[in-house]
Amino acid sequence: MRPSGRAPDQLRPVALETEVNKHAEGSCLVRFGDTHVLCTASIEDRVPPFLRNSGKGWVTAEYGMLPRATTTRGDREAARGRQTGRTMEIQRLIGRSLRSVTDLGGFGERSIRLDCDVLQADGGTRTAAITGSYVALHAAFGHMVELGALKKVPLSDQVTAVSCGICEGEALLDLDYAEDSNAQVDANFVMTGRGGIVEIQTTAEHEPFTPAQLAEMLALAERGVAELAELQRVALGL
Amino acid sequence: MRPSGRAPDQLRPVALETEVNKHAEGSCLVRFGDTHVLCTASIEDRVPPFLRNSGKGWVTAEYGMLPRATTTRGDREAARGRQTGRTMEIQRLIGRSLRSVTDLGGFGERSIRLDCDVLQADGGTRTAAITGSYVALHAAFGHMVELGALKKVPLSDQVTAVSCGICEGEALLDLDYAEDSNAQVDANFVMTGRGGIVEIQTTAEHEPFTPAQLAEMLALAERGVAELAELQRVALGL
Amino acid sequence: MRPSGRAPDQLRPVALETEVNKHAEGSCLVRFGDTHVLCTASIEDRVPPFLRNSGKGWVTAEYGMLPRATTTRGDREAARGRQTGRTMEIQRLIGRSLRSVTDLGGFGERSIRLDCDVLQADGGTRTAAITGSYVALHAAFGHMVELGALKKVPLSDQVTAVSCGICEGEALLDLDYAEDSNAQVDANFVMTGRGGIVEIQTTAEHEPFTPAQLAEMLALAERGVAELAELQRVALGL
Amino acid sequence: MRPSGRAPDQLRPVALETEVNKHAEGSCLVRFGDTHVLCTASIEDRVPPFLRNSGKGWVTAEYGMLPRATTTRGDREAARGRQTGRTMEIQRLIGRSLRSVTDLGGFGERSIRLDCDVLQADGGTRTAAITGSYVALHAAFGHMVELGALKKVPLSDQVTAVSCGICEGEALLDLDYAEDSNAQVDANFVMTGRGGIVEIQTTAEHEPFTPAQLAEMLALAERGVAELAELQRVALGL
Amino acid sequence: MRPSGRAPDQLRPVALETEVNKHAEGSCLVRFGDTHVLCTASIEDRVPPFLRNSGKGWVTAEYGMLPRATTTRGDREAARGRQTGRTMEIQRLIGRSLRSVTDLGGFGERSIRLDCDVLQADGGTRTAAITGSYVALHAAFGHMVELGALKKVPLSDQVTAVSCGICEGEALLDLDYAEDSNAQVDANFVMTGRGGIVEIQTTAEHEPFTPAQLAEMLALAERGVAELAELQRVALGL
Amino acid sequence: MRPSGRAPDQLRPVALETEVNKHAEGSCLVRFGDTHVLCTASIEDRVPPFLRNSGKGWVTAEYGMLPRATTTRGDREAARGRQTGRTMEIQRLIGRSLRSVTDLGGFGERSIRLDCDVLQADGGTRTAAITGSYVALHAAFGHMVELGALKKVPLSDQVTAVSCGICEGEALLDLDYAEDSNAQVDANFVMTGRGGIVEIQTTAEHEPFTPAQLAEMLALAERGVAELAELQRVALGL
Repeated sequence: MRPSGRAPDQLRPVALETEVNKHAEGSCLVRFGDTHVLCTASIEDRVPPFLRNSGKGWVTAEYGMLPRATTTRGDREAARGRQTGRTMEIQRLIGRSLRSVTDLGGFGERSIRLDCDVLQADGGTRTAAITGSYVALHAAFGHMVELGALKKVPLSDQVTAVSCGICEGEALLDLDYAEDSNAQVDANFVMTGRGGIVEIQTTAEHEPFTPAQLAEMLALAERGVAELAELQRVALGL
Repeated sequence: MRPSGRAPDQLRPVALETEVNKHAEGSCLVRFGDTHVLCTASIEDRVPPFLRNSGKGWVTAEYGMLPRATTTRGDREAARGRQTGRTMEIQRLIGRSLRSVTDLGGFGERSIRLDCDVLQADGGTRTAAITGSYVALHAAFGHMVELGALKKVPLSDQVTAVSCGICEGEALLDLDYAEDSNAQVDANFVMTGRGGIVEIQTTAEHEPFTPAQLAEMLALAERGVAELAELQRVALGL
Repeated sequence: MRPSGRAPDQLRPVALETEVNKHAEGSCLVRFGDTHVLCTASIEDRVPPFLRNSGKGWVTAEYGMLPRATTTRGDREAARGRQTGRTMEIQRLIGRSLRSVTDLGGFGERSIRLDCDVLQADGGTRTAAITGSYVALHAAFGHMVELGALKKVPLSDQVTAVSCGICEGEALLDLDYAEDSNAQVDANFVMTGRGGIVEIQTTAEHEPFTPAQLAEMLALAERGVAELAELQRVALGL
Repeated sequence: MRPSGRAPDQLRPVALETEVNKHAEGSCLVRFGDTHVLCTASIEDRVPPFLRNSGKGWVTAEYGMLPRATTTRGDREAARGRQTGRTMEIQRLIGRSLRSVTDLGGFGERSIRLDCDVLQADGGTRTAAITGSYVALHAAFGHMVELGALKKVPLSDQVTAVSCGICEGEALLDLDYAEDSNAQVDANFVMTGRGGIVEIQTTAEHEPFTPAQLAEMLALAERGVAELAELQRVALGL
Repeated sequence: MRPSGRAPDQLRPVALETEVNKHAEGSCLVRFGDTHVLCTASIEDRVPPFLRNSGKGWVTAEYGMLPRATTTRGDREAARGRQTGRTMEIQRLIGRSLRSVTDLGGFGERSIRLDCDVLQADGGTRTAAITGSYVALHAAFGHMVELGALKKVPLSDQVTAVSCGICEGEALLDLDYAEDSNAQVDANFVMTGRGGIVEIQTTAEHEPFTPAQLAEMLALAERGVAELAELQRVALGL
Repeated sequence: MRPSGRAPDQLRPVALETEVNKHAEGSCLVRFGDTHVLCTASIEDRVPPFLRNSGKGWVTAEYGMLPRATTTRGDREAARGRQTGRTMEIQRLIGRSLRSVTDLGGFGERSIRLDCDVLQADGGTRTAAITGSYVALHAAFGHMVELGALKKVPLSDQVTAVSCGICEGEALLDLDYAEDSNAQVDANFVMTGRGGIVEIQTTAEHEPFTPAQLAEMLALAERGVAELAELQRVALGL
């Protein structure tokens, strides 16, 4: 029995609220249960040096956690003067995930920066951030289409992410913090709307795991991302 | 005529929502119109070195702005590796303001840290942060009273803040961004619930101002903080 | 009775010595009693990015304190790798104060940087720095006039600053360190030669203060800055 | 046909040389073809704060690349003043991998730090580093056993790592740089000597991949790590 | 002919003014011509970790240059967030030089920190700093003797420093900036009052030099430091 | 008797191995006994701002020590976020030494960066680094000559370095760590192949030394560098 009473293959209540920031070209407040992440997409008319005069654009992400997003207050990274390895790892993952479905040649020499700020954390902040920032990115592109700056939204597919884990021998979908801190295996799956795999990160906390357990988690993840992709389409009115 | 259609002595719609973070001992989402600041109060059982064995506690604040809180995206301070002078100036002001009404000898050798994170900015973020973080601080102390850790809330008065300015020669209360960026004089008043002045910061952007203009702004501020103090009492159920 | 034996409205002995640095375009060693600040003005033939091709110049300030300027040695900011919030707050104040009397369109696309380094501190370093750096700035502009690079000194007025405070209920002018550390209210007034107010920063250390106390301090400040402005004129031979 | 002429399931020539540093408690120079990583294990008699008085030890890793380990010289991280996200991600992975086979309760309150410095890079530096640092860690524990400080080496299994990828539709084992930069999918597998999976990191560079492709790569990895584990046993004389 | 008209073996006018800072335990404003360095000695009742419970004290130095000490304004190191290699090299040299004549066992577990801040630079700042900080150090020890905290000044000898150089083939004593920037060889000699050599740093800027040229410079340096040592004794009233 | 059994004027076994890095334009693994330094030379087609459009190139060096190069593990500078003063001092010395024999006008507007990374330290790392990086630099220039990019190697002479010291009153050549840590005087001599002196750094650790002792060390150094220069010629096939 999960602490939340959910079935093993059941997501937490997920909400994707758009247009939550009056300044950003695209925005989404994503909630996976008590994990709340504010995602904004900002468009800039320049690209990193390695893309100048390439005709291509770039999509990148920054991730942060408010100091009291967590049970115990964490240090403010801006005050400490450096981002943690965990922060860098997560923001690199978000950026790669979004680029995997973006046609970088389809929106000119522009950069789109996704800011994913965790207002409250209860496990799965990186998967919520990927799921929500896809919505913010799509909204920003939609905004450019409306303005006539683009003919179409340069996204080849949706991208969503969900965590899975093995807790007391059982594979579970979408771990919350209570589960995550006791899981034997912790896995994050980034997948497209059509079910392709973009990224898998799987870590055994104490004991190694088996190919069969990997397959079980992958099956749960496929179920979860299908639901999340549907929620993205609803949120975007697609 | 103000861009928002407000009267010169009229605040923007102000909302103070409490219990907005499941982890923090006290929290408040404060809205002054389109300026939204999330304030959390976190209690720690230790004090800075200069207060060890003094029997006294400490109250301090940290301030941050999400990169896309503003019209144009700003750099993430954590990524740049240092906080700007503006950030430091504001968080020092918030800390001083809260300490001015706190009985530092009344809650043991504990630190309370107020995190004020601007989710969306439209002028007046520091005054909103002070007004909201007072609510979060009171709630955190109330939480300790409920737990039996304190006999009473060690706050001698309320503290609130509001901005004023001189725009085209006229004194105005609670400037929004459109007004703020064109004001000749920009002033921030921190005052107690009983009307005492805690801090005044007044800056002439181009032309110096007169003692009479200072008095005009002070009169507006007294009006504004009285309204804000009433809203704080309602939010806290006092 | 003040520790120094001064009357409540009496400045410390003030000295403004010019041409104290053989390299700088303008320089002034300012002494407010035992507070000694070395101010230099350096002219550079370029402006910050936001002013390029605007035809305008910029005036900015940097502030530092030698480690043993104070009773107890402080850390060297260069060794710690970051400036404190106090330093940033003060240098921003100095820059704003000088810009308020400078015609930024009157000296081409140049930057003038005022370096204010406290050799010895005894309270009031920021007000001494503003008063002295005005002299250094005027001298630098005078130097450009002499060289024929400018037709006239692009300053619309003088700017000076002085502190006031409430100690044991009494308003006092130009606090020294002994007074400053016991003051109930600590205020800094930046004013022009013609008596306009440029900036007011007033802080209640423990108890809030009243509008009447603010008026008392303002009256003292007006007296003090008039004397300082006269000393500036003498130092500059105006 | 692979650029190196290897079969799809063929490792590069791998060498594990021990006792390559006269100071370190354990050391290993690992070569996967032209990728050369110097791994040292250093024992310290203290643990991080969260383990004090726990009776447990800690194993952690730091990773670095000499500036000219790569085709084009990279910046020296010490000179830039910060480690890249990539560096942090890799050193966190190495640390987790080694801890997964270490009995943290079996060597007292000590820390063992693995330094993995890439002398020359040709793809697969992280997998070489994991494989080599296991040898250095085992050697350091062996050293403590010899000194009588431990009764036995507190390692429950071996840990090794290898990369796989999909290049032009074909799954390949142990990519070198030429292959890695053209791979559609890039995967790193960390596994134990008995074949358990410790960590999987799989990334689609452009197109998503399928569960079948994941299985293919996993099968290759199982083969590769079995060979690497045998080479570790030989190097350690087990 | 030297630009200043000095003879090859002639020092610039040297002045050593003591008691120039009301807070420091010892202080000296040293002038070698237009090179002016403010040296303060600060005593702290603690030592670095490696000396705890050793019964020994420590002497160390920090060096800084005001931004406009030089012809062209330099960056403020505190603002850039790091000290240059040159600064670190010089402050290490000053510390070593003073320790070479200090009985570290003769003043308890205390640290004395010499701050050497260059107010104006015209070549030879490091040699002026060593010469002046010896005076400040002696004064600080003298202060402790007066207070009864020490029986005698724990200095075994004086220490002074002077630069020499080869300009157009001729060896010169105490280079000023105009000479220094054209010298073929630039040398700094740190010597004791009794003529022992503490440190030599000699650098050929373009062409290597000969043992004979080294001997010539050493002979000049011996002359210069004898004069400087006499000036130190006069300044200290010895 | 020296700990190693060497005669006072005897170098440690020295080896200079070239072509040790497949990417670098020039490389040399230098061993002075147990001190091992990997030197690589990297050519870049741009120069620092102060040389743009001068027709001249630049040679510079960076130095690092692997954390466990030393008996006790040292902090990784990249992790601490700053290079130590010692590191900066050494890399400045290496750069100056190499530039003293390089015709900066002889290889176009290019920069050559020497990376000297200490794999294992046993005293004398800076002298080994200078000796080895000369070989790497020569090899890089030779590579450009082979490619036809240069007509000849723009080096006017060789440059080598060796340490000397006074231990128990006796002058010794090429100190190892055991000697270095007990030496009364520690000296580094950088000299050209033709015996000119480029740089001398001599430090008395406790007691000052005499001109006669300096001469003794210089004589030993002349002997040592002659041997090293011969080894460089052999390594380079000259």
